[in-house]
Amino acid sequence: MNYKMIRFLLSRVLQITGILMLLPLIVALIYKEFFCAKMFLVIIAGSLIFGSIGAYFKPKNVAIYAREGFVATALTWILISAVGALPFVLTGVTDDYIDALFETISGLTTTGSTILSSVEMYYSVQFWRTFTHWIGGMGVLVFILAIMPMSGGYSMHLMRAESPGPVVGKIVPKVKDTAKILYLIYFGITVLETLALWASGLSLYEAMTITFSTVGTGGFAVTNSGIGGYSTLSQAIIILFMALCGVNFTVYYFLIHLKPKEAFAIDEVKYYFGTMFAAAALIAFNIYRAGVLDSAGMCFHHALFAVTSIMTTTGFGTLDFDQWPTFSRILLMALACIGACAGSTGGGFKFSRALIVIRNARNELNFLVHPKAVKRVYMDGHTVEGTTVKSVSAYLGLYVITFLVSTLLVSFDNFDFQTTVTSVIATLNNIGPGLGKVGPMGNYSEFSYLSKIVLMFDMLAGRLELLPIFIVLKPKTWKRKL
Amino acid sequence: MNYKMIRFLLSRVLQITGILMLLPLIVALIYKEFFCAKMFLVIIAGSLIFGSIGAYFKPKNVAIYAREGFVATALTWILISAVGALPFVLTGVTDDYIDALFETISGLTTTGSTILSSVEMYYSVQFWRTFTHWIGGMGVLVFILAIMPMSGGYSMHLMRAESPGPVVGKIVPKVKDTAKILYLIYFGITVLETLALWASGLSLYEAMTITFSTVGTGGFAVTNSGIGGYSTLSQAIIILFMALCGVNFTVYYFLIHLKPKEAFAIDEVKYYFGTMFAAAALIAFNIYRAGVLDSAGMCFHHALFAVTSIMTTTGFGTLDFDQWPTFSRILLMALACIGACAGSTGGGFKFSRALIVIRNARNELNFLVHPKAVKRVYMDGHTVEGTTVKSVSAYLGLYVITFLVSTLLVSFDNFDFQTTVTSVIATLNNIGPGLGKVGPMGNYSEFSYLSKIVLMFDMLAGRLELLPIFIVLKPKTWKRKL
Repeated sequence: MNYKMIRFLLSRVLQITGILMLLPLIVALIYKEFFCAKMFLVIIAGSLIFGSIGAYFKPKNVAIYAREGFVATALTWILISAVGALPFVLTGVTDDYIDALFETISGLTTTGSTILSSVEMYYSVQFWRTFTHWIGGMGVLVFILAIMPMSGGYSMHLMRAESPGPVVGKIVPKVKDTAKILYLIYFGITVLETLALWASGLSLYEAMTITFSTVGTGGFAVTNSGIGGYSTLSQAIIILFMALCGVNFTVYYFLIHLKPKEAFAIDEVKYYFGTMFAAAALIAFNIYRAGVLDSAGMCFHHALFAVTSIMTTTGFGTLDFDQWPTFSRILLMALACIGACAGSTGGGFKFSRALIVIRNARNELNFLVHPKAVKRVYMDGHTVEGTTVKSVSAYLGLYVITFLVSTLLVSFDNFDFQTTVTSVIATLNNIGPGLGKVGPMGNYSEFSYLSKIVLMFDMLAGRLELLPIFIVLKPKTWKRKL
Repeated sequence: MNYKMIRFLLSRVLQITGILMLLPLIVALIYKEFFCAKMFLVIIAGSLIFGSIGAYFKPKNVAIYAREGFVATALTWILISAVGALPFVLTGVTDDYIDALFETISGLTTTGSTILSSVEMYYSVQFWRTFTHWIGGMGVLVFILAIMPMSGGYSMHLMRAESPGPVVGKIVPKVKDTAKILYLIYFGITVLETLALWASGLSLYEAMTITFSTVGTGGFAVTNSGIGGYSTLSQAIIILFMALCGVNFTVYYFLIHLKPKEAFAIDEVKYYFGTMFAAAALIAFNIYRAGVLDSAGMCFHHALFAVTSIMTTTGFGTLDFDQWPTFSRILLMALACIGACAGSTGGGFKFSRALIVIRNARNELNFLVHPKAVKRVYMDGHTVEGTTVKSVSAYLGLYVITFLVSTLLVSFDNFDFQTTVTSVIATLNNIGPGLGKVGPMGNYSEFSYLSKIVLMFDMLAGRLELLPIFIVLKPKTWKRKL
């Protein structure tokens, strides 16, 4: 294990954290929240000083292998969460560090579960709260890769450990350029949504913060009425941008380079949109028949909002879907487990993995009936490598195990079955709201410390796609030499 | 597809069904239920006549390949269920054929879910009801293989399709002898438990019927008070025999042949008993603290009963565990999904499969940290073949898909989340009771026809381990030539 390189990388992360906090500092100054400004300044100074000390001695051996990549990624996320939680405690939004940590991890992992009964707070802290969604959406290390001069061929290991999906492709040959392109697209979408929401009637501040929560597929609202308080037009804009951010970002790269054929050849994107509209239609029909709303059109609007919000793992709510018929609620929770596309800012098991699992199962059935059949899984017109199929299977196994163990630990709180099960679904898939006590109108404040720690673990495990977090927990990982 | 051979096999199954119904006919005569006797006689006569006609022309080509094996197995189970449901309708226990079919499939698949609000009925029909557990426990085709003269090397395909577990081993080189040995052990256990229960104070009739429900790991009770009405001694005997029937039967073969070393080398059996005692201790502690019972000893007794009943997928209940704290209820449902050992009469995903999934996931983690590590999954001291790991993974995929789709379809009934989810868990894993409306004190009568059909499908899919049922549903299967 190259400890020196991990120390160096984490110091860089600390520096970046300090720099990122300059934005809420500016917001604090604009809104004359001088107490908050002072607190942000303290954290920024501390981060920059300790970060610069740690990054002063550049290690001679900059080699990073897969193991270091996973460990650095996991530790990066833990470090930035630990520092990112400080503003909540120092400004008195909460006086419990565990709660602040929960809120920050929920923000960075783009989960959007809150422990706050009221989400209305200082402008600057609210800005930081939603900004964590934006940071976490594309990833901290991808950001570092995009802006920092780094030499050596090790960067791919960092990108692979942080990016969602079964196969991480470089869009262009150089990792640095790929990271830059991803952040440019991300930045472009952010600007577009902010302008659209601003034009639809929101204040610039609200437009920006809601945009951070949308494009990061996070789900923190900035008012207690949530998204339900906005106009239908604003809601429609949010639907559009949620849907766009759940798409594999490679699609946009192809579209920008005028390669529509390549863009539309990506299998999972077709299934993603197909599922989205089919599920919205089913739920609209279900809630219309149940008399949730009188207008069929509005039923479709809110059903599409809920489906997009859950599938992209954003977790915004316009209506309290926990009051809907069981079919709608269970369909939403099933969609929650699948999640968004690989290579998007969304979480969950991912459509591409689900497709590989389904196609592998179909193959197995074919093989039993016709033993001479060739056992190959196809995706986007290519054969999926055997090792990928195997690691997706292992992933499914780990996912189910994590789910079961977490549910058991959370069940010690003795909440009802629905709350217990869906709190784990909602955090492990980085969605935010579940059903029951953790429904769209509820929050996570009632859970015990044990449950909060388990759910924080699940949020991190979900965002980093299990492997880095599990690798950090293996004692063998920490041996100097293998 | 060798249609003639399938027709021949199904005719044999029909004959066997008729012969098996001679037992409840005798019971009807003993208890002077002459109306029931007449009805059984009609069904027996019909089965024997149609069966004999169908089996009269023996096909020249007796070759059966994997495809025919799966199809014959699935159709066998559907046929025997369809005929086995007739006594319930003809004697007026229910006037709804769908309900009768549900009860029969629940019996044969050793699920033990009932649609009856009162399970007290004619002695002869009750005998048949519990006897379906006994038949289904070891399998209909295994029975046919054991008793019928059959030539050709095709019989392994039948056994493989019907027997539970990721790898079906022949205990002895000949399939016929393996089937015989399995049924002899099964018969021996049945006699032992009947005698033990009789000695503990039950009537001979009750001892026999409860034994059928226990050794088949079914779970139909014969009185409305269930197992809770029996003495602690009788309950302890039932715990013992449930536990024994959830064990891989190969263990008994080794023990009989005085090979204890081989018997105790089977990995999953160790984990099975380890999990059983650990879970019972946890639940005992949980319900003792919650004040369910005053005596710690009785808490352990009932916790062990519930754990054994759920792990072996029997589904008997002494106390209403739906009233226990959430931790106990969720632990029971998690154990329900894992189920018993491969090669036992129990259902569920099976311990050996769970071990393969866990070890494969661990391997994948090792591989990421140490890319030169050899990716091999070990079991019972041997390497598990790559194709087995792959098919277990495919199985897990199919299992999750079946679970999600079934839950969605059942949710149309608009019952609460807990009832909806656990009704699928309880049927797909052949357990019987779930939580909520389908808890130990509830039943399945309130479900719509759609849900009942979905749950029947799940019971069959669970008992036959998904593949045969899915293969029957594939149009490609039915082509004459591949």
